[in-house]
Amino acid sequence: MTMPRINKLVVIGVGLIGGSFALALKKAKVVKHVVGVGRSRRNLNAALKLGVIDEIARDAASAVRDADLVLIGTPVGQMPGVMKAIAPHLNDKTIVTDGGSTKQDVIACARKHLGKHFANFVPAHPMAGTEHSGAAAAFPELYRGRKVIVVPQAETAARALRMVRASWVACGAKVVRLQAHEHDDILAAVSHLPHAVAFALMGTLAKRDDARHVLGFSAGGLRDTVRISGSSPEMWRDIFLANRSALVGAMDKYLFEINSLRKFLKAGDGQALQAAFERARDARERWLVKPARG
Amino acid sequence: MTMPRINKLVVIGVGLIGGSFALALKKAKVVKHVVGVGRSRRNLNAALKLGVIDEIARDAASAVRDADLVLIGTPVGQMPGVMKAIAPHLNDKTIVTDGGSTKQDVIACARKHLGKHFANFVPAHPMAGTEHSGAAAAFPELYRGRKVIVVPQAETAARALRMVRASWVACGAKVVRLQAHEHDDILAAVSHLPHAVAFALMGTLAKRDDARHVLGFSAGGLRDTVRISGSSPEMWRDIFLANRSALVGAMDKYLFEINSLRKFLKAGDGQALQAAFERARDARERWLVKPARG
Repeated sequence: MTMPRINKLVVIGVGLIGGSFALALKKAKVVKHVVGVGRSRRNLNAALKLGVIDEIARDAASAVRDADLVLIGTPVGQMPGVMKAIAPHLNDKTIVTDGGSTKQDVIACARKHLGKHFANFVPAHPMAGTEHSGAAAAFPELYRGRKVIVVPQAETAARALRMVRASWVACGAKVVRLQAHEHDDILAAVSHLPHAVAFALMGTLAKRDDARHVLGFSAGGLRDTVRISGSSPEMWRDIFLANRSALVGAMDKYLFEINSLRKFLKAGDGQALQAAFERARDARERWLVKPARG
Repeated sequence: MTMPRINKLVVIGVGLIGGSFALALKKAKVVKHVVGVGRSRRNLNAALKLGVIDEIARDAASAVRDADLVLIGTPVGQMPGVMKAIAPHLNDKTIVTDGGSTKQDVIACARKHLGKHFANFVPAHPMAGTEHSGAAAAFPELYRGRKVIVVPQAETAARALRMVRASWVACGAKVVRLQAHEHDDILAAVSHLPHAVAFALMGTLAKRDDARHVLGFSAGGLRDTVRISGSSPEMWRDIFLANRSALVGAMDKYLFEINSLRKFLKAGDGQALQAAFERARDARERWLVKPARG
Protein backbone atom coordinates (compact mmCIF):
# COMPACT_ATOMS: atom_id res chain seq x y z
CA MET A 1 0.00 0.00 0.00
CA THR A 2 1.35 3.43 -0.89
CA MET A 3 1.75 5.95 1.88
CA PRO A 4 -0.77 8.77 1.90
CA ARG A 5 0.52 12.31 1.42
CA ILE A 6 -1.50 14.78 3.45
CA ASN A 7 -0.72 18.48 3.12
CA LYS A 8 -3.45 19.57 5.51
CA LEU A 9 -5.10 17.42 8.12
CA VAL A 10 -7.96 18.85 10.16
CA VAL A 11 -8.77 17.21 13.46
CA ILE A 12 -12.13 18.22 14.89
CA GLY A 13 -12.09 17.24 18.55
CA VAL A 14 -8.44 16.95 19.58
CA GLY A 15 -8.77 14.28 22.26
CA LEU A 16 -7.19 10.88 22.78
CA ILE A 17 -8.41 9.52 19.42
CA GLY A 18 -7.95 12.56 17.18
CA GLY A 19 -4.74 13.65 18.91
CA SER A 20 -3.14 10.21 18.66
CA PHE A 21 -4.12 10.00 14.97
CA ALA A 22 -2.35 13.32 14.32
CA LEU A 23 0.73 12.30 16.31
CA ALA A 24 0.96 8.92 14.58
CA LEU A 25 0.73 10.48 11.09
CA LYS A 26 3.33 13.06 12.06
CA LYS A 27 5.63 10.35 13.31
CA ALA A 28 5.13 8.46 10.03
CA LYS A 29 5.99 11.71 8.19
CA VAL A 30 2.93 11.57 5.97
CA VAL A 31 1.32 14.82 7.10
CA LYS A 32 2.60 18.37 6.65
CA HIS A 33 0.27 20.56 8.65
CA VAL A 34 -2.31 19.70 11.31
CA VAL A 35 -5.14 22.07 12.17
CA GLY A 36 -7.11 21.50 15.36
CA VAL A 37 -10.66 22.54 16.18
CA GLY A 38 -12.48 22.05 19.46
CA ARG A 39 -14.71 23.47 22.17
CA SER A 40 -12.06 23.84 24.86
CA ARG A 41 -9.48 26.53 24.23
CA ARG A 42 -7.43 25.17 27.10
CA ASN A 43 -7.28 21.73 25.50
CA LEU A 44 -6.36 23.21 22.10
CA ASN A 45 -3.60 25.28 23.67
CA ALA A 46 -2.24 22.13 25.30
CA ALA A 47 -2.44 20.29 21.96
CA LEU A 48 -0.48 23.09 20.26
CA LYS A 49 2.12 23.20 23.00
CA LEU A 50 2.56 19.42 22.92
CA GLY A 51 2.96 19.43 19.13
CA VAL A 52 -0.19 17.39 18.56
CA ILE A 53 -1.44 20.14 16.20
CA ASP A 54 0.33 22.98 14.39
CA GLU A 55 -2.48 25.51 14.31
CA ILE A 56 -5.73 26.26 16.12
CA ALA A 57 -8.64 27.14 13.82
CA ARG A 58 -11.41 29.49 14.85
CA ASP A 59 -14.15 27.06 13.86
CA ALA A 60 -14.75 23.86 11.94
CA ALA A 61 -16.22 25.65 8.91
CA SER A 62 -13.11 27.76 8.25
CA ALA A 63 -10.74 24.96 9.22
CA VAL A 64 -11.83 22.47 6.57
CA ARG A 65 -11.16 24.75 3.59
CA ASP A 66 -8.53 23.11 1.31
CA ALA A 67 -8.09 20.21 3.70
CA ASP A 68 -6.96 16.89 2.28
CA LEU A 69 -8.33 14.92 5.20
CA VAL A 70 -10.73 15.76 8.03
CA LEU A 71 -10.99 13.49 11.05
CA ILE A 72 -14.05 14.03 13.24
CA GLY A 73 -12.87 12.87 16.64
CA THR A 74 -15.68 14.32 18.76
CA PRO A 75 -18.12 12.33 20.87
CA VAL A 76 -20.76 10.93 18.51
CA GLY A 77 -23.45 13.21 19.97
CA GLN A 78 -21.67 16.23 18.50
CA MET A 79 -21.31 14.84 15.00
CA PRO A 80 -24.61 16.14 13.58
CA GLY A 81 -23.64 19.71 14.48
CA VAL A 82 -20.11 19.29 13.15
CA MET A 83 -21.21 17.75 9.84
CA LYS A 84 -23.86 20.41 9.29
CA ALA A 85 -21.27 23.12 9.94
CA ILE A 86 -18.57 21.77 7.62
CA ALA A 87 -20.68 20.49 4.67
CA PRO A 88 -20.99 23.86 2.85
CA HIS A 89 -17.22 24.42 3.12
CA LEU A 90 -15.87 21.11 1.87
CA ASN A 91 -14.36 20.92 -1.58
CA ASP A 92 -14.70 17.95 -3.92
CA LYS A 93 -11.33 16.52 -3.01
CA THR A 94 -11.53 16.71 0.77
CA ILE A 95 -11.94 13.33 2.39
CA VAL A 96 -13.79 13.08 5.67
CA THR A 97 -13.59 10.28 8.19
CA ASP A 98 -14.50 9.80 11.84
CA GLY A 99 -13.45 7.81 14.89
CA GLY A 100 -16.89 7.39 16.40
CA SER A 101 -17.69 4.36 18.55
CA THR A 102 -21.00 3.63 16.80
CA LYS A 103 -21.52 3.42 13.07
CA GLN A 104 -25.18 3.06 12.04
CA ASP A 105 -26.10 6.41 13.59
CA VAL A 106 -22.96 8.19 12.36
CA ILE A 107 -23.59 6.96 8.80
CA ALA A 108 -27.24 8.10 8.93
CA CYS A 109 -26.07 11.45 10.22
CA ALA A 110 -23.45 11.84 7.49
CA ARG A 111 -25.89 10.82 4.78
CA LYS A 112 -28.27 13.49 6.04
CA HIS A 113 -25.83 16.34 6.55
CA LEU A 114 -22.89 15.89 4.14
CA GLY A 115 -25.02 15.92 0.96
CA LYS A 116 -22.93 15.34 -2.19
CA HIS A 117 -19.81 14.99 -0.02
CA PHE A 118 -21.14 11.78 1.48
CA ALA A 119 -19.19 9.88 -1.23
CA ASN A 120 -15.99 11.26 0.29
CA PHE A 121 -16.93 10.18 3.81
CA VAL A 122 -15.36 6.98 5.17
CA PRO A 123 -16.94 5.80 8.45
CA ALA A 124 -14.24 4.31 10.67
CA HIS A 125 -13.56 3.28 14.24
CA PRO A 126 -10.20 2.40 15.78
CA MET A 127 -10.25 -0.40 18.41
CA ALA A 128 -8.05 1.42 20.84
CA GLY A 129 -8.38 3.74 23.76
CA THR A 130 -7.46 4.32 27.36
CA GLU A 131 -9.48 5.65 30.27
CA HIS A 132 -7.87 9.06 29.80
CA SER A 133 -9.22 11.82 27.61
CA GLY A 134 -8.02 15.10 26.14
CA ALA A 135 -5.06 16.05 23.96
CA ALA A 136 -2.60 15.47 26.81
CA ALA A 137 -3.56 11.79 26.83
CA ALA A 138 -2.72 11.35 23.13
CA PHE A 139 0.34 9.37 22.06
CA PRO A 140 1.57 8.22 18.63
CA GLU A 141 1.70 4.48 19.44
CA LEU A 142 -1.97 4.19 20.48
CA TYR A 143 -2.93 2.45 17.23
CA ARG A 144 0.12 0.25 16.73
CA GLY A 145 -1.04 -3.34 16.10
CA ARG A 146 -4.70 -2.44 16.78
CA LYS A 147 -7.65 -3.04 14.50
CA VAL A 148 -9.44 -0.18 12.79
CA ILE A 149 -12.88 -1.01 11.44
CA VAL A 150 -13.91 0.78 8.25
CA VAL A 151 -17.51 0.71 7.09
CA PRO A 152 -17.61 1.95 3.48
CA GLN A 153 -21.06 2.42 1.95
CA ALA A 154 -22.30 1.80 -1.59
CA GLU A 155 -21.68 5.49 -2.37
CA THR A 156 -18.17 5.64 -0.91
CA ALA A 157 -15.53 6.70 -3.46
CA ALA A 158 -12.67 4.22 -3.92
CA ARG A 159 -10.15 7.08 -3.64
CA ALA A 160 -11.57 8.12 -0.26
CA LEU A 161 -11.45 4.58 1.11
CA ARG A 162 -7.86 4.15 -0.14
CA MET A 163 -6.72 7.34 1.56
CA VAL A 164 -8.34 6.52 4.91
CA ARG A 165 -7.04 2.94 4.84
CA ALA A 166 -3.53 4.14 4.04
CA SER A 167 -3.65 6.70 6.85
CA TRP A 168 -4.55 4.08 9.43
CA VAL A 169 -1.91 1.72 8.07
CA ALA A 170 0.60 4.55 8.46
CA CYS A 171 -0.50 4.72 12.14
CA GLY A 172 0.49 1.06 12.50
CA ALA A 173 -3.09 -0.23 12.57
CA LYS A 174 -4.68 -3.16 10.79
CA VAL A 175 -7.74 -2.17 8.76
CA VAL A 176 -10.77 -4.47 8.79
CA ARG A 177 -14.02 -3.97 6.86
CA LEU A 178 -17.38 -4.66 8.50
CA GLN A 179 -21.07 -3.89 7.93
CA ALA A 180 -22.40 -1.10 10.14
CA HIS A 181 -24.84 -3.33 12.04
CA GLU A 182 -22.13 -5.95 12.64
CA HIS A 183 -19.87 -3.24 13.99
CA ASP A 184 -22.50 -1.93 16.37
CA ASP A 185 -23.44 -5.39 17.62
CA ILE A 186 -19.81 -6.41 18.20
CA LEU A 187 -18.92 -3.14 19.89
CA ALA A 188 -21.96 -3.39 22.16
CA ALA A 189 -20.61 -6.75 23.35
CA VAL A 190 -16.87 -6.12 23.68
CA SER A 191 -16.76 -2.43 24.53
CA HIS A 192 -20.05 -0.78 25.47
CA LEU A 193 -21.23 -3.58 27.78
CA PRO A 194 -17.89 -3.71 29.66
CA HIS A 195 -18.21 0.04 30.20
CA ALA A 196 -21.73 -0.38 31.59
CA VAL A 197 -20.43 -3.13 33.89
CA ALA A 198 -17.48 -1.06 35.11
CA PHE A 199 -19.50 2.14 35.62
CA ALA A 200 -22.14 0.15 37.55
CA LEU A 201 -19.56 -1.59 39.77
CA MET A 202 -17.73 1.62 40.63
CA GLY A 203 -21.09 3.36 41.07
CA THR A 204 -22.22 0.69 43.54
CA LEU A 205 -19.12 1.15 45.68
CA ALA A 206 -19.35 4.95 45.42
CA LYS A 207 -22.77 4.87 47.07
CA ARG A 208 -21.48 3.34 50.32
CA ASP A 209 -21.09 5.78 53.20
CA ASP A 210 -17.85 4.01 54.08
CA ALA A 211 -16.58 3.92 50.47
CA ARG A 212 -13.21 5.38 51.34
CA HIS A 213 -12.52 2.90 54.14
CA VAL A 214 -13.75 -0.06 52.12
CA LEU A 215 -11.81 0.86 48.97
CA GLY A 216 -8.67 0.96 51.10
CA PHE A 217 -8.85 -2.84 51.28
CA SER A 218 -9.09 -3.44 47.55
CA ALA A 219 -6.36 -5.15 45.57
CA GLY A 220 -5.50 -5.13 41.89
CA GLY A 221 -8.62 -7.08 40.95
CA LEU A 222 -11.05 -4.26 41.61
CA ARG A 223 -8.68 -1.68 40.18
CA ASP A 224 -8.51 -3.44 36.82
CA THR A 225 -12.19 -4.36 36.74
CA VAL A 226 -13.25 -0.71 37.07
CA ARG A 227 -10.39 0.92 35.15
CA ILE A 228 -12.60 2.00 32.26
CA SER A 229 -15.08 3.67 34.63
CA GLY A 230 -12.52 6.49 34.52
CA SER A 231 -13.58 7.18 30.90
CA SER A 232 -15.31 10.37 29.77
CA PRO A 233 -18.95 10.44 31.01
CA GLU A 234 -20.06 12.69 28.17
CA MET A 235 -18.52 10.52 25.48
CA TRP A 236 -20.01 7.37 26.97
CA ARG A 237 -23.44 8.92 27.38
CA ASP A 238 -23.37 9.61 23.63
CA ILE A 239 -22.15 6.12 22.76
CA PHE A 240 -24.81 4.48 24.92
CA LEU A 241 -27.60 6.55 23.35
CA ALA A 242 -26.24 6.08 19.84
CA ASN A 243 -26.10 2.30 20.18
CA ARG A 244 -29.13 1.92 22.40
CA SER A 245 -30.84 -1.13 20.93
CA ALA A 246 -27.71 -3.28 20.51
CA LEU A 247 -26.52 -2.32 24.00
CA VAL A 248 -29.84 -3.04 25.71
CA GLY A 249 -29.68 -6.48 24.05
CA ALA A 250 -26.12 -7.06 25.28
CA MET A 251 -27.02 -5.87 28.80
CA ASP A 252 -29.98 -8.27 28.90
CA LYS A 253 -27.73 -11.23 28.09
CA TYR A 254 -25.33 -10.10 30.81
CA LEU A 255 -28.11 -9.58 33.35
CA PHE A 256 -29.31 -13.12 32.66
CA GLU A 257 -25.79 -14.43 33.33
CA ILE A 258 -25.18 -12.53 36.57
CA ASN A 259 -28.69 -13.27 37.82
CA SER A 260 -27.93 -16.95 37.23
CA LEU A 261 -24.79 -16.67 39.36
CA ARG A 262 -26.86 -15.01 42.08
CA LYS A 263 -29.47 -17.78 41.88
CA PHE A 264 -26.81 -20.53 42.13
CA LEU A 265 -25.25 -18.71 45.08
CA LYS A 266 -28.54 -18.30 46.93
CA ALA A 267 -29.28 -21.99 46.38
CA GLY A 268 -25.79 -22.97 47.56
CA ASP A 269 -25.25 -24.74 44.23
CA GLY A 270 -21.46 -24.97 44.19
CA GLN A 271 -21.39 -27.25 41.15
CA ALA A 272 -23.33 -24.79 38.99
CA LEU A 273 -21.18 -21.88 40.20
CA GLN A 274 -17.97 -23.72 39.45
CA ALA A 275 -19.21 -24.76 35.99
CA ALA A 276 -20.09 -21.15 35.16
CA PHE A 277 -16.68 -19.92 36.39
CA GLU A 278 -14.93 -22.61 34.34
CA ARG A 279 -16.80 -21.64 31.17
CA ALA A 280 -15.72 -18.05 31.67
CA ARG A 281 -12.13 -18.87 32.53
CA ASP A 282 -11.76 -21.27 29.60
CA ALA A 283 -13.22 -18.75 27.15
CA ARG A 284 -10.79 -16.13 28.42
CA GLU A 285 -7.84 -18.48 28.01
CA ARG A 286 -8.85 -19.49 24.48
CA TRP A 287 -9.20 -15.83 23.61
CA LEU A 288 -5.86 -14.73 25.02
CA VAL A 289 -4.14 -17.94 23.76
CA LYS A 290 -2.16 -18.14 26.95
CA PRO A 291 -0.27 -21.19 28.12
CA ALA A 292 -1.82 -22.77 31.22
CA ARG A 293 -0.10 -21.73 34.45
CA GLY A 294 0.47 -23.44 37.75
CA MET B 1 8.76 -5.24 65.69
CA THR B 2 11.24 -8.06 66.09
CA MET B 3 11.72 -10.43 63.21
CA PRO B 4 10.22 -13.86 63.65
CA ARG B 5 12.58 -16.86 63.67
CA ILE B 6 10.94 -19.85 62.08
CA ASN B 7 12.82 -23.14 62.03
CA LYS B 8 10.06 -25.05 60.34
CA LEU B 9 7.27 -23.55 58.26
CA VAL B 10 4.57 -25.82 56.89
CA VAL B 11 2.55 -24.60 53.93
CA ILE B 12 -0.60 -26.59 53.30
CA GLY B 13 -1.71 -25.77 49.78
CA VAL B 14 1.35 -24.44 47.93
CA GLY B 15 -0.37 -22.07 45.52
CA LEU B 16 -0.04 -18.38 44.80
CA ILE B 17 -0.77 -17.32 48.39
CA GLY B 18 1.09 -20.03 50.34
CA GLY B 19 3.96 -20.18 47.88
CA SER B 20 4.50 -16.42 47.87
CA PHE B 21 4.40 -16.38 51.70
CA ALA B 22 7.17 -19.02 51.79
CA LEU B 23 9.25 -17.19 49.18
CA ALA B 24 8.89 -13.84 50.95
CA LEU B 25 9.94 -15.29 54.31
CA LYS B 26 12.89 -17.03 52.66
CA LYS B 27 13.94 -13.79 51.02
CA ALA B 28 13.70 -12.04 54.42
CA LYS B 29 15.88 -14.83 55.85
CA VAL B 30 13.51 -15.54 58.73
CA VAL B 31 12.70 -19.16 57.85
CA LYS B 32 15.04 -22.15 57.82
CA HIS B 33 13.04 -24.99 56.36
CA VAL B 34 9.76 -25.01 54.41
CA VAL B 35 7.64 -28.15 54.14
CA GLY B 36 4.89 -28.26 51.54
CA VAL B 37 1.71 -30.33 51.51
CA GLY B 38 -0.89 -30.49 48.78
CA ARG B 39 -3.18 -32.56 46.63
CA SER B 40 -1.26 -32.25 43.37
CA ARG B 41 2.09 -34.06 43.27
CA ARG B 42 2.90 -32.22 40.04
CA ASN B 43 2.41 -28.85 41.71
CA LEU B 44 4.50 -29.88 44.75
CA ASN B 45 7.30 -31.09 42.49
CA ALA B 46 7.25 -27.75 40.71
CA ALA B 47 7.32 -25.94 44.09
CA LEU B 48 10.36 -27.99 45.16
CA LYS B 49 12.16 -27.41 41.88
CA LEU B 50 11.47 -23.66 42.02
CA GLY B 51 12.76 -23.44 45.60
CA VAL B 52 9.37 -22.40 46.98
CA ILE B 53 9.55 -25.32 49.43
CA ASP B 54 12.46 -27.48 50.67
CA GLU B 55 10.61 -30.71 51.29
CA ILE B 56 7.39 -32.44 50.28
CA ALA B 57 5.48 -34.07 53.14
CA ARG B 58 3.35 -37.18 52.71
CA ASP B 59 0.34 -35.63 54.40
CA ALA B 60 -0.69 -32.68 56.54
CA ALA B 61 -0.81 -34.72 59.77
CA SER B 62 2.83 -35.81 59.60
CA ALA B 63 3.98 -32.47 58.21
CA VAL B 64 2.87 -30.32 61.14
CA ARG B 65 4.88 -32.20 63.80
CA ASP B 66 7.36 -29.80 65.44
CA ALA B 67 6.35 -26.96 63.14
CA ASP B 68 6.77 -23.40 64.39
CA LEU B 69 4.24 -22.02 61.95
CA VAL B 70 1.60 -23.62 59.74
CA LEU B 71 -0.03 -21.61 56.96
CA ILE B 72 -3.21 -23.10 55.53
CA GLY B 73 -3.26 -21.75 52.00
CA THR B 74 -5.93 -24.04 50.55
CA PRO B 75 -9.29 -22.92 49.16
CA VAL B 76 -11.58 -22.28 52.14
CA GLY B 77 -13.76 -25.29 51.26
CA GLN B 78 -10.87 -27.61 52.13
CA MET B 79 -10.12 -26.07 55.51
CA PRO B 80 -12.46 -28.24 57.61
CA GLY B 81 -10.73 -31.40 56.34
CA VAL B 82 -7.26 -29.91 56.84
CA MET B 83 -7.95 -28.66 60.36
CA LYS B 84 -9.50 -31.97 61.39
CA ALA B 85 -6.46 -33.81 60.07
CA ILE B 86 -3.81 -31.67 61.75
CA ALA B 87 -5.45 -30.96 65.14
CA PRO B 88 -4.31 -34.22 66.85
CA HIS B 89 -0.72 -33.67 65.68
CA LEU B 90 -0.16 -30.06 66.71
CA ASN B 91 2.02 -29.34 69.72
CA ASP B 92 1.36 -26.53 72.18
CA LYS B 93 3.86 -24.19 70.57
CA THR B 94 2.85 -24.56 66.94
CA ILE B 95 1.10 -21.49 65.60
CA VAL B 96 -1.46 -21.90 62.84
CA THR B 97 -2.69 -19.22 60.47
CA ASP B 98 -4.54 -19.14 57.16
CA GLY B 99 -4.87 -17.03 54.04
CA GLY B 100 -8.55 -17.70 53.41
CA SER B 101 -10.68 -15.09 51.65
CA THR B 102 -13.53 -15.32 54.15
CA LYS B 103 -13.19 -15.15 57.89
CA GLN B 104 -16.43 -15.85 59.78
CA ASP B 105 -16.70 -19.37 58.35
CA VAL B 106 -12.97 -20.11 58.74
CA ILE B 107 -13.08 -19.02 62.38
CA ALA B 108 -16.15 -21.17 63.07
CA CYS B 109 -14.41 -24.09 61.40
CA ALA B 110 -11.20 -23.60 63.42
CA ARG B 111 -13.14 -23.27 66.66
CA LYS B 112 -14.86 -26.55 65.89
CA HIS B 113 -11.87 -28.56 64.71
CA LEU B 114 -8.72 -27.23 66.36
CA GLY B 115 -9.92 -27.78 69.95
CA LYS B 116 -7.43 -26.52 72.54
CA HIS B 117 -5.15 -25.34 69.73
CA PHE B 118 -7.68 -22.69 68.72
CA ALA B 119 -5.78 -20.21 70.96
CA ASN B 120 -2.76 -20.66 68.67
CA PHE B 121 -4.79 -19.98 65.52
CA VAL B 122 -4.58 -16.50 63.97
CA PRO B 123 -7.17 -15.94 61.22
CA ALA B 124 -5.64 -13.79 58.48
CA HIS B 125 -6.16 -12.70 54.89
CA PRO B 126 -3.67 -10.92 52.64
CA MET B 127 -5.15 -8.34 50.23
CA ALA B 128 -3.14 -9.53 47.27
CA GLY B 129 -3.46 -11.93 44.42
CA THR B 130 -3.28 -12.31 40.69
CA GLU B 131 -5.46 -14.26 38.27
CA HIS B 132 -2.85 -17.04 38.21
CA SER B 133 -2.78 -20.00 40.53
CA GLY B 134 -0.37 -22.74 41.54
CA ALA B 135 3.17 -22.73 42.93
CA ALA B 136 4.61 -21.54 39.61
CA ALA B 137 2.64 -18.30 39.99
CA ALA B 138 4.17 -17.51 43.42
CA PHE B 139 6.69 -14.69 43.80
CA PRO B 140 8.30 -13.12 46.90
CA GLU B 141 7.13 -9.54 46.23
CA LEU B 142 3.40 -10.37 46.10
CA TYR B 143 2.76 -8.89 49.54
CA ARG B 144 5.07 -5.87 49.41
CA GLY B 145 3.08 -2.78 50.45
CA ARG B 146 -0.19 -4.72 50.58
CA LYS B 147 -2.58 -4.94 53.52
CA VAL B 148 -3.00 -8.15 55.49
CA ILE B 149 -6.12 -8.33 57.64
CA VAL B 150 -5.79 -10.26 60.90
CA VAL B 151 -8.88 -11.21 62.88
CA PRO B 152 -7.75 -12.32 66.35
CA GLN B 153 -10.46 -13.75 68.61
CA ALA B 154 -10.93 -13.41 72.39
CA GLU B 155 -9.10 -16.73 72.83
CA THR B 156 -6.15 -15.89 70.57
CA ALA B 157 -2.78 -16.04 72.40
CA ALA B 158 -0.75 -12.84 72.28
CA ARG B 159 2.34 -14.82 71.29
CA ALA B 160 0.54 -16.33 68.31
CA LEU B 161 -0.71 -12.96 67.09
CA ARG B 162 2.78 -11.45 67.48
CA MET B 163 4.37 -14.22 65.44
CA VAL B 164 1.84 -13.99 62.60
CA ARG B 165 2.01 -10.19 62.53
CA ALA B 166 5.80 -10.28 62.43
CA SER B 167 5.78 -12.85 59.62
CA TRP B 168 3.56 -10.70 57.44
CA VAL B 169 5.64 -7.63 58.24
CA ALA B 170 8.70 -9.60 57.14
CA CYS B 171 6.88 -10.20 53.83
CA GLY B 172 6.65 -6.42 53.41
CA ALA B 173 2.94 -6.24 54.22
CA LYS B 174 1.00 -3.85 56.43
CA VAL B 175 -1.05 -5.63 59.08
CA VAL B 176 -4.55 -4.32 59.85
CA ARG B 177 -6.96 -5.71 62.44
CA LEU B 178 -10.68 -6.08 61.69
CA GLN B 179 -13.72 -7.85 63.07
CA ALA B 180 -14.67 -10.99 61.13
CA HIS B 181 -18.03 -9.62 59.96
CA GLU B 182 -16.42 -6.34 58.84
CA HIS B 183 -13.85 -8.30 56.89
CA ASP B 184 -16.48 -10.39 55.14
CA ASP B 185 -18.65 -7.40 54.28
CA ILE B 186 -15.72 -5.39 52.91
CA LEU B 187 -14.34 -8.31 50.92
CA ALA B 188 -17.78 -9.02 49.45
CA ALA B 189 -17.78 -5.46 48.10
CA VAL B 190 -14.20 -4.98 46.88
CA SER B 191 -13.22 -8.50 45.88
CA HIS B 192 -16.01 -11.06 45.67
CA LEU B 193 -18.48 -8.82 43.81
CA PRO B 194 -15.85 -7.79 41.20
CA HIS B 195 -15.18 -11.48 40.61
CA ALA B 196 -18.90 -12.16 40.11
CA VAL B 197 -19.05 -9.24 37.66
CA ALA B 198 -15.98 -10.40 35.71
CA PHE B 199 -17.04 -14.06 35.58
CA ALA B 200 -20.52 -13.00 34.39
CA LEU B 201 -19.16 -10.65 31.70
CA MET B 202 -16.74 -13.21 30.32
CA GLY B 203 -19.44 -15.89 30.62
CA THR B 204 -21.85 -13.75 28.59
CA LEU B 205 -19.35 -13.36 25.76
CA ALA B 206 -18.38 -17.05 25.94
CA LYS B 207 -21.96 -18.03 25.14
CA ARG B 208 -21.99 -16.31 21.74
CA ASP B 209 -21.57 -18.64 18.76
CA ASP B 210 -19.31 -16.04 17.21
CA ALA B 211 -17.31 -15.46 20.42
CA ARG B 212 -13.94 -15.90 18.74
CA HIS B 213 -14.70 -13.43 15.93
CA VAL B 214 -16.25 -10.89 18.30
CA LEU B 215 -13.43 -11.07 20.87
CA GLY B 216 -10.98 -10.34 18.06
CA PHE B 217 -12.31 -6.78 18.05
CA SER B 218 -11.85 -6.12 21.76
CA ALA B 219 -9.36 -3.60 23.08
CA GLY B 220 -7.67 -3.24 26.45
CA GLY B 221 -10.93 -2.25 28.18
CA LEU B 222 -12.50 -5.68 28.01
CA ARG B 223 -9.19 -7.40 28.75
CA ASP B 224 -8.77 -5.55 32.03
CA THR B 225 -12.44 -5.75 33.00
CA VAL B 226 -12.43 -9.56 32.80
CA ARG B 227 -8.85 -10.20 33.93
CA ILE B 228 -9.90 -11.78 37.22
CA SER B 229 -12.27 -14.19 35.44
CA GLY B 230 -9.04 -16.12 34.85
CA SER B 231 -8.97 -16.97 38.58
CA SER B 232 -9.38 -20.49 39.96
CA PRO B 233 -13.03 -21.65 39.60
CA GLU B 234 -12.73 -24.03 42.56
CA MET B 235 -11.29 -21.42 44.88
CA TRP B 236 -13.96 -18.91 43.89
CA ARG B 237 -16.78 -21.42 44.23
CA ASP B 238 -15.62 -21.92 47.84
CA ILE B 239 -15.30 -18.20 48.54
CA PHE B 240 -18.76 -17.48 47.13
CA LEU B 241 -20.36 -20.20 49.22
CA ALA B 242 -18.42 -19.25 52.34
CA ASN B 243 -19.47 -15.60 52.11
CA ARG B 244 -22.92 -16.19 50.70
CA SER B 245 -25.06 -13.73 52.63
CA ALA B 246 -22.69 -10.76 52.38
CA LEU B 247 -22.12 -11.44 48.69
CA VAL B 248 -25.81 -11.78 47.83
CA GLY B 249 -26.28 -8.39 49.52
CA ALA B 250 -23.44 -6.84 47.51
CA MET B 251 -24.76 -8.35 44.27
CA ASP B 252 -28.22 -6.93 44.94
CA LYS B 253 -26.82 -3.42 45.31
CA TYR B 254 -24.91 -3.89 42.07
CA LEU B 255 -27.94 -5.30 40.25
CA PHE B 256 -29.92 -2.25 41.33
CA GLU B 257 -27.20 0.01 39.88
CA ILE B 258 -26.83 -1.74 36.52
CA ASN B 259 -30.60 -2.10 36.16
CA SER B 260 -30.84 1.67 36.68
CA LEU B 261 -28.35 2.22 33.86
CA ARG B 262 -30.43 -0.07 31.64
CA LYS B 263 -33.60 1.83 32.55
CA PHE B 264 -32.00 5.23 31.77
CA LEU B 265 -30.71 3.84 28.48
CA LYS B 266 -34.09 2.42 27.44
CA ALA B 267 -35.73 5.75 28.28
CA GLY B 268 -33.04 7.65 26.34
CA ASP B 269 -32.28 9.64 29.50
CA GLY B 270 -28.82 10.96 28.67
CA GLN B 271 -28.70 13.26 31.67
CA ALA B 272 -29.26 10.43 34.14
CA LEU B 273 -26.71 8.23 32.36
CA GLN B 274 -24.10 10.95 32.40
CA ALA B 275 -24.74 11.72 36.08
CA ALA B 276 -24.28 8.04 36.98
CA PHE B 277 -21.07 7.82 34.94
CA GLU B 278 -19.76 10.98 36.60
CA ARG B 279 -20.45 9.63 40.09
CA ALA B 280 -18.53 6.48 39.24
CA ARG B 281 -15.63 8.29 37.59
CA ASP B 282 -15.33 10.81 40.42
CA ALA B 283 -15.35 8.07 43.07
CA ARG B 284 -12.63 6.23 41.18
CA GLU B 285 -10.50 9.36 40.95
CA ARG B 286 -10.92 10.15 44.66
CA TRP B 287 -9.95 6.57 45.44
CA LEU B 288 -6.86 6.46 43.26
CA VAL B 289 -5.95 10.08 44.17
CA LYS B 290 -4.89 10.74 40.62
CA PRO B 291 -4.31 14.18 39.14
CA ALA B 292 -6.92 15.13 36.54
CA ARG B 293 -5.79 14.49 32.98
CA GLY B 294 -6.49 16.21 29.66
